[in-house]
Formats: sequence, structure tokens, C-alpha cells
Amino acid sequence: MQWYVVASLLTVLTSSQGILTTLSQSNGGYKYDYATVPFLAEVFKLIVSCVLLWRECQRSPPPKMTTEWRSVRLFPIPSVIYLIHNNVQFATLTFVDTSTYQIMGNLKIVTTGILFRLFLKRKLSNLQWMAIVLLAIGTTTSQVKGCGEASCESLFSSPIQGYMLGILSACLSALAGVYTEFLMKKSSDSLYWQNIQLYTFGAIFNMAKLVLDDFRSGFEKGPWWQRLFNGYTITTWMVVLNLGSTGLLVSWLMKYADNIVKVYSTSMAMLLTMVLSVFLFNFKPTLQLFLGIFVCMMSLHMYFAPPSMLVDLPVTAKAEPQSLVQVSVDRRTAS
Amino acid sequence: MQWYVVASLLTVLTSSQGILTTLSQSNGGYKYDYATVPFLAEVFKLIVSCVLLWRECQRSPPPKMTTEWRSVRLFPIPSVIYLIHNNVQFATLTFVDTSTYQIMGNLKIVTTGILFRLFLKRKLSNLQWMAIVLLAIGTTTSQVKGCGEASCESLFSSPIQGYMLGILSACLSALAGVYTEFLMKKSSDSLYWQNIQLYTFGAIFNMAKLVLDDFRSGFEKGPWWQRLFNGYTITTWMVVLNLGSTGLLVSWLMKYADNIVKVYSTSMAMLLTMVLSVFLFNFKPTLQLFLGIFVCMMSLHMYFAPPSMLVDLPVTAKAEPQSLVQVSVDRRTAS
Repeated sequence: MQWYVVASLLTVLTSSQGILTTLSQSNGGYKYDYATVPFLAEVFKLIVSCVLLWRECQRSPPPKMTTEWRSVRLFPIPSVIYLIHNNVQFATLTFVDTSTYQIMGNLKIVTTGILFRLFLKRKLSNLQWMAIVLLAIGTTTSQVKGCGEASCESLFSSPIQGYMLGILSACLSALAGVYTEFLMKKSSDSLYWQNIQLYTFGAIFNMAKLVLDDFRSGFEKGPWWQRLFNGYTITTWMVVLNLGSTGLLVSWLMKYADNIVKVYSTSMAMLLTMVLSVFLFNFKPTLQLFLGIFVCMMSLHMYFAPPSMLVDLPVTAKAEPQSLVQVSVDRRTAS
Repeated sequence: MQWYVVASLLTVLTSSQGILTTLSQSNGGYKYDYATVPFLAEVFKLIVSCVLLWRECQRSPPPKMTTEWRSVRLFPIPSVIYLIHNNVQFATLTFVDTSTYQIMGNLKIVTTGILFRLFLKRKLSNLQWMAIVLLAIGTTTSQVKGCGEASCESLFSSPIQGYMLGILSACLSALAGVYTEFLMKKSSDSLYWQNIQLYTFGAIFNMAKLVLDDFRSGFEKGPWWQRLFNGYTITTWMVVLNLGSTGLLVSWLMKYADNIVKVYSTSMAMLLTMVLSVFLFNFKPTLQLFLGIFVCMMSLHMYFAPPSMLVDLPVTAKAEPQSLVQVSVDRRTAS
């Protein structure tokens, strides 16, 4: 399978995730316990990976699987990073409002590029760096509050701790992605075997969170396993399957493509969600949404198009009569 | 002189123009007749060009000057285009409000690129086209109304005639620029001699406008020459000299650089004016201003940097130990 097919699928599914989650609400709230969704998604991914690994085992040669503790012990680390990230996120939101938090979230595009360079030693051209920064600018532009919207003054007026935590949050989010890529690519183990290790720890950490929540609330709603499917509708199940599928696609991209491809997929998904919301939820399109989409499209082309396509001047088949403007400074003929 | 020195100077002077004009007002209005300013600026440019041509004539070889009617008759054309443009601009403003007009004004960046290609047969790389579109997006982004500002709904709700006239206006403005470049480069005549022809017609057209205004108002404020310096302060004179100087710099750029350089200079000037207004007039900076400035800076680098600097991957001095991520799809190693 080609990486761009997987990346496009990830864009569509990530975008559906937001829309399905909104559709799964009734009267503006959840009838089910939303915390159970990521747990079930981990279980779904684990089952799918087991089935695919089993099928791979039937064939020859059998898939490569490293079962040493030295290797297995690296797989809970992404879950640990996400756990820290969630707590930092929570702390950030005590200092800044959600719209400032959302704007700062675009920083993770840039931090991913930086950690990708530093941690994975991957080289990017000047133009690719510019494309990454433009992607962050484009997504931010699309989120700029239109006129007449509430909470205007908040962006530049949060306490400094809020911005520091926002930057930390962006770094942790990037670190989790870059570390997962490192993990998936460091051995030639079967993708499904790597997934099983990743998702087993994922399921354990999610379960631990559910248990902790139960203790925090003093079991007033009963233990988590009793309310696991409470209030679940067909849409809720679709949310679970969709979240699980996006996770499987991300794993595939981490092994066979890279973090930057993932960042582009999810950024495009955000824009797609905003465009779909115009039709589905009568969301009012703003000028800044169009401008942001344009900037992101340019960025996509700049990052992925072959360099020669970008910088070569168009060639004319026959010698064109020299125009009268040759006196002009030709700054770009060096190509 | 290098083109980028002239271009930077043009940016600074164009930016001062807006600020000086604001400073020349008293109590929010003009004490002098603003229509006299462009006329005096044409006269100033004419005098400067005459002095410079005279100095050039003292030296040997003498400057080249074509005085045939076949050549001279082309010089009123830019003035005629500007005259039509001013009337279209006036008609556009009867359909759209000033902020929509200002946003649409950024279209002229793109129309200049198109006419530059079609009329002057100049080739641009894919990346340079993207840079031009990004410049238009960046300037538009910086002008997006912040939240809480008045006249929110106007942008997408003007009658279709307004948008058509806005596009026509952008085309005429680009045509005037591109035609002037064609005129300046089509012969190897002295720049100052070409300027004298251009500004003589400019002065005549501006004077005609003053006379016409007098007839329209039924001479209630007297003939224009009687009120020529009425209410002029030192700041008003600075506005005149500044406007004249920007005109001289534009002529230089049209002959020795090109329209795209001019478009970058004036776009950067607009952003510089907004930044200076933050300090001078307590203008409140918005997130979209920062985003727009970033996009324009990227665009500038994309258009003018040598292609090799943009697309080459960084080279490491010594052979780096191969990192573990070589499994990854290397999409950009073709360079």
C-alpha cells in the first residue's frame, strides 16, 4: 500500500471522528461514559492486530518477533508520555481558555519537525521547514475568531505559565509521536507484533485511568466495567471503531512513512472537519477559513512535490522570440 | 545601485506615506485640498528628473533620448489607465464597503503576476507562483477584521457587480504597472528622459482633474491655482516630497528590476505601516497581523532565495552514523 493512500484514509477517518463524536451526543451531552471509548478502541486495535498477526504466522516465512524484555520494555513509554501530556494539558487549561489552547495546539506541528530532526536525525530542506511552519500558520489562521464572536481579548492576556505549559504540551505531544516512530522503525519486527505490544500497554493504561476515576468519584456510579456499554448507541460504537481504525493507520504510518506525514494528515483532517461542519452543522464559514485552507494546500505541495517541479522554470518547446524585457535583472536564471 | 536597496527604500517611503498623511490631518480632516498633493508630486518628480537629465547631458557619452512622436505617444497611456482605474474604483465603492474593497485590493498581487507572464512573457517557477499567491494571502490575512470590530457580515454579502468591478480594478492596476515596465524597458533611453515624458503627462492629467473638479463644484472654492498651497504645513510638504520620491523609486524599479519587486515592496510597506501604527497610533495588534507577516516573510524568501538554497538537503561534514530510521520512505532523496 502507498503511504499517501493511508494518509488520505487517516485524514477522512480523523475528520469523521470529530463529526461522529458530535453526532453521538444527545442534547449537548454524552449519555455514555466518554472515558470508556479510548479503552474500547485500544481493545479493538489489539484484537485486529492479533488476527492479522495470526494470519501472518500461517504464511512462510513467519513474521519476525522480538520477545526479549530489553525490547518489550520500550513499548509502555508512549503511553507514559501521553499520560504526562494529558496532565500537562489539564494544568494548561487552568491558565488559558480553550480557544487559546486550541491555537497553541498548532505549535505541535513545529515541535514535531524539530524533534524529528533532533531525535530521528532526519534532514529537511529549507523549503520543507518553511512548509512545516506554513502548515502551523495555516491551521492557526483557519481558527482565528471571526468578528462578532465572544472571548476576544483572551489570546495575548493569559498568565505566562499558561504559555509555558502550552509549549511543554506541544513538545510532549511531538515527543510521543517521534518516539513511536523510533520504536516502530528500530527493528524489522512484524508491524502487528509491535502493535500488540503498544496496544496492550495502551489498554492497561486506559484501564488504570478508569479505575482511578472510580476511586476519585468514590464509586458513586459503580465500577467501570458495569457501565462499560451503558448508553452506547450505534453511533457510539462507530466512534469506537473509528478511533481504533485511526490508531491502526497511525501505527502503519509510523513504520512505513513518518511523523510529518501524520501531522499533514491530521491537520488536513481539521480543515476538512471545519468545511464539513459548514454543511452538517450550519457552521458559518469565515474568510480566515478559506485563507488557512489555501496556506495549508501550498504547504502540502511545497513539502511533498519533487524539488525539480517546484524550482524549474517552464521550458518552451521552440526558441521563443526574445522579448524586449531582457534588460531586467534575472535573479533566478541560476537554476 | 542594487535593486534590493531601492526596493527597501521604497518600502520605507511607502510606509511613511500612510503615516505622514495621517499626521497631516487635523481633527480627523484635511485643512488643505488633498487633490493638489498628487499634482505637486508630479511636478516635483519632473523637476528632479530634469535636473538629473541635465547632469547626465554634461557627461560623455550623452544620454540616449528618443524624441519621435511614435515613442513619445506611448507615455500618456499609464496616466490614461490610472484615470480609468480611479473611475472603476469609485464605481466599485458604490457596491462594496471600504474594508471589502481593501481585501479585494490584494488581488492585484496575483493579477500583476498573471499580466507579467502574459504581457511581458516573463517565466516564473512553480514556487514563485506559489510565493505570489502566498503574498496575497498573507496581506489579506493581516487585514482580517479582529473580533469585536464593526461591519462583520459585509465580505460575502455584496452584490456581484461589486466583486466583478473589484476584479476589473485589480486588472487595471496590474496593467498600469506592467505597461510602465514594458515602456521603461523597451528602449535603452535614459531613465530620466523617460521619466520626464511620463511625469509631464502625469502632471497634465492631474491638472485636468483639478480643473474638472473646479467646474464640477462651480468654482465655489475659487480656481485650483489659488488654493494650491492653502493650509499647507511642513507635514503636507513632506507628504508631497515623500509621494514624489516613491514615484521616482518605482520608475527606477520598473527599468532596472520588475513589477514583482515593486509588488513585494508595497506589500511589505503595508505590513510595516500596520506595525508602526501599533506604536504610533495605539493600533491594537491582532493574531492575524502576526500570521500575515509570517506568511509574507515566507513568500519573500520563497520568491527571491536561490532555488538551491531552498531545496538542497543540509550536508554533513563527516559521514554520520546511519540512524535506525532508514526503513522509512525517503521521498526527497532525488535532489
